Amino acid sequence: MYKVKVYVTLKESVLDPQGNAVKNSLHSLSYNEVEEVRIGKYMELTIGGSTENVEKRIEEMCERLLANTVIEDYRYEIEEVVSQ
Amino acid sequence: MYKVKVYVTLKESVLDPQGNAVKNSLHSLSYNEVEEVRIGKYMELTIGGSTENVEKRIEEMCERLLANTVIEDYRYEIEEVVSQ
Repeated sequence: MYKVKVYVTLKESVLDPQGNAVKNSLHSLSYNEVEEVRIGKYMELTIGGSTENVEKRIEEMCERLLANTVIEDYRYEIEEVVSQ
Repeated sequence: MYKVKVYVTLKESVLDPQGNAVKNSLHSLSYNEVEEVRIGKYMELTIGGSTENVEKRIEEMCERLLANTVIEDYRYEIEEVVSQ
Protein backbone atom coordinates (compact mmCIF):
# COMPACT_ATOMS: atom_id res chain seq x y z
CA MET A 1 0.00 0.00 0.00
CA TYR A 2 1.17 3.48 -0.77
CA LYS A 3 0.28 6.93 0.46
CA VAL A 4 0.81 9.54 -2.21
CA LYS A 5 0.81 13.26 -1.55
CA VAL A 6 0.14 15.40 -4.59
CA TYR A 7 0.67 19.16 -4.62
CA VAL A 8 -0.85 21.15 -7.46
CA THR A 9 0.09 24.82 -7.75
CA LEU A 10 -0.59 27.55 -10.27
CA LYS A 11 2.36 28.34 -12.51
CA GLU A 12 4.30 31.46 -11.52
CA SER A 13 3.01 33.43 -14.50
CA VAL A 14 -0.67 32.73 -13.81
CA LEU A 15 -2.67 35.23 -11.78
CA ASP A 16 -4.22 33.91 -8.58
CA PRO A 17 -7.37 35.92 -7.75
CA GLN A 18 -8.30 33.54 -4.93
CA GLY A 19 -4.89 34.09 -3.36
CA ASN A 20 -5.31 37.84 -3.71
CA ALA A 21 -8.68 37.69 -1.97
CA VAL A 22 -7.12 35.80 0.92
CA LYS A 23 -4.26 38.31 1.08
CA ASN A 24 -6.72 41.19 1.25
CA SER A 25 -8.67 39.45 4.00
CA LEU A 26 -5.45 38.94 5.97
CA HIS A 27 -4.62 42.64 5.54
CA SER A 28 -8.04 43.61 6.83
CA LEU A 29 -7.29 41.47 9.91
CA SER A 30 -4.09 43.56 10.30
CA TYR A 31 -1.64 40.95 9.08
CA ASN A 32 0.02 43.51 6.86
CA GLU A 33 3.30 41.60 6.71
CA VAL A 34 1.73 39.17 4.23
CA GLU A 35 3.06 40.13 0.81
CA GLU A 36 1.73 37.36 -1.34
CA VAL A 37 -0.59 34.38 -1.10
CA ARG A 38 -0.74 31.60 -3.69
CA ILE A 39 -3.34 28.90 -3.34
CA GLY A 40 -3.02 25.38 -4.61
CA LYS A 41 -4.45 21.95 -4.02
CA TYR A 42 -3.17 19.19 -1.83
CA MET A 43 -4.35 15.64 -2.39
CA GLU A 44 -3.70 12.46 -0.46
CA LEU A 45 -4.20 9.25 -2.43
CA THR A 46 -4.22 5.78 -0.95
CA ILE A 47 -3.03 3.25 -3.50
CA GLY A 48 -3.89 -0.36 -2.75
CA GLY A 49 -2.12 -3.66 -3.01
CA SER A 50 1.17 -4.37 -4.63
CA THR A 51 0.72 -2.10 -7.59
CA GLU A 52 3.57 -2.00 -10.08
CA ASN A 53 4.89 1.19 -11.64
CA VAL A 54 3.31 3.37 -8.95
CA GLU A 55 5.39 6.37 -9.92
CA LYS A 56 4.54 6.11 -13.61
CA ARG A 57 0.85 5.71 -12.89
CA ILE A 58 0.75 8.66 -10.47
CA GLU A 59 2.48 10.79 -13.10
CA GLU A 60 -0.21 9.75 -15.60
CA MET A 61 -3.03 10.53 -13.16
CA CYS A 62 -1.60 14.01 -12.61
CA GLU A 63 -1.26 14.65 -16.34
CA ARG A 64 -4.69 13.30 -17.24
CA LEU A 65 -6.89 14.37 -14.36
CA LEU A 66 -5.42 15.87 -11.20
CA ALA A 67 -3.65 18.89 -12.67
CA ASN A 68 -4.39 21.19 -15.56
CA THR A 69 -0.88 21.31 -16.96
CA VAL A 70 -1.60 24.38 -19.08
CA ILE A 71 -1.76 26.57 -16.00
CA GLU A 72 -0.66 24.32 -13.15
CA ASP A 73 2.48 22.54 -11.95
CA TYR A 74 2.41 19.43 -9.82
CA ARG A 75 4.75 17.46 -7.66
CA TYR A 76 4.20 14.34 -5.59
CA GLU A 77 5.70 12.26 -2.82
CA ILE A 78 5.20 8.51 -2.68
CA GLU A 79 5.43 6.75 0.65
CA GLU A 80 5.18 3.01 1.05
CA VAL A 81 3.00 1.90 3.94
CA VAL A 82 4.03 -1.38 5.50
CA SER A 83 1.05 -3.00 7.18
CA GLN A 84 1.63 -4.85 10.42
CA MET B 1 11.51 37.41 4.54
CA TYR B 2 9.77 34.11 5.11
CA LYS B 3 8.07 31.58 2.89
CA VAL B 4 5.33 29.74 4.71
CA LYS B 5 3.65 26.61 3.40
CA VAL B 6 0.26 25.91 4.91
CA TYR B 7 -1.55 22.60 4.45
CA VAL B 8 -5.24 22.44 5.33
CA THR B 9 -6.91 19.03 5.34
CA LEU B 10 -10.33 17.76 6.31
CA LYS B 11 -10.40 15.95 9.63
CA GLU B 12 -10.46 12.14 9.36
CA SER B 13 -14.07 11.90 10.49
CA VAL B 14 -15.38 14.38 7.91
CA LEU B 15 -16.74 13.06 4.61
CA ASP B 16 -14.96 14.31 1.48
CA PRO B 17 -17.40 14.27 -1.46
CA GLN B 18 -14.92 16.11 -3.70
CA GLY B 19 -12.32 13.44 -2.99
CA ASN B 20 -14.87 10.73 -3.76
CA ALA B 21 -15.70 12.35 -7.09
CA VAL B 22 -12.00 12.40 -8.00
CA LYS B 23 -11.66 8.76 -6.92
CA ASN B 24 -14.60 7.77 -9.15
CA SER B 25 -13.10 9.68 -12.07
CA LEU B 26 -9.78 7.89 -11.57
CA HIS B 27 -11.62 4.56 -11.51
CA SER B 28 -13.37 5.38 -14.75
CA LEU B 29 -9.91 6.04 -16.25
CA SER B 30 -8.98 2.50 -15.08
CA TYR B 31 -6.85 3.51 -12.11
CA ASN B 32 -8.66 0.98 -9.95
CA GLU B 33 -5.80 0.71 -7.48
CA VAL B 34 -6.81 4.07 -5.98
CA GLU B 35 -8.61 3.28 -2.74
CA GLU B 36 -9.12 6.70 -1.29
CA VAL B 37 -8.66 10.34 -2.23
CA ARG B 38 -8.74 13.18 0.29
CA ILE B 39 -8.53 16.73 -0.97
CA GLY B 40 -7.14 19.65 0.93
CA LYS B 41 -5.69 23.08 0.35
CA TYR B 42 -2.11 24.12 0.01
CA MET B 43 -1.14 27.76 0.48
CA GLU B 44 2.16 29.56 0.06
CA LEU B 45 2.47 32.81 1.95
CA THR B 46 5.26 35.31 1.54
CA ILE B 47 5.85 37.21 4.76
CA GLY B 48 7.79 40.42 4.43
CA GLY B 49 10.49 42.13 6.39
CA SER B 50 11.84 41.21 9.76
CA THR B 51 8.55 40.27 11.30
CA GLU B 52 8.63 39.12 14.89
CA ASN B 53 6.70 36.16 16.21
CA VAL B 54 6.16 34.72 12.73
CA GLU B 55 5.11 31.36 14.08
CA LYS B 56 2.57 32.81 16.49
CA ARG B 57 1.09 35.05 13.80
CA ILE B 58 0.83 32.22 11.26
CA GLU B 59 -0.91 30.10 13.87
CA GLU B 60 -3.37 32.94 14.41
CA MET B 61 -3.99 33.40 10.67
CA CYS B 62 -4.78 29.69 10.38
CA GLU B 63 -7.16 29.77 13.32
CA ARG B 64 -8.91 32.96 12.27
CA LEU B 65 -9.06 32.72 8.49
CA LEU B 66 -7.17 30.03 6.62
CA ALA B 67 -8.70 26.92 8.17
CA ASN B 68 -12.13 26.10 9.48
CA THR B 69 -11.00 24.35 12.63
CA VAL B 70 -14.39 22.73 13.21
CA ILE B 71 -13.88 20.40 10.26
CA GLU B 72 -10.28 21.00 9.18
CA ASP B 73 -6.77 20.42 10.50
CA TYR B 74 -3.80 22.51 9.48
CA ARG B 75 -0.06 22.35 9.61
CA TYR B 76 2.59 24.71 8.34
CA GLU B 77 6.27 24.97 7.53
CA ILE B 78 8.15 28.22 7.93
CA GLU B 79 11.25 28.81 5.86
CA GLU B 80 13.45 31.85 6.20
CA VAL B 81 14.52 33.35 2.89
CA VAL B 82 17.85 35.09 3.02
CA SER B 83 18.03 37.70 0.29
CA GLN B 84 21.30 38.21 -1.51
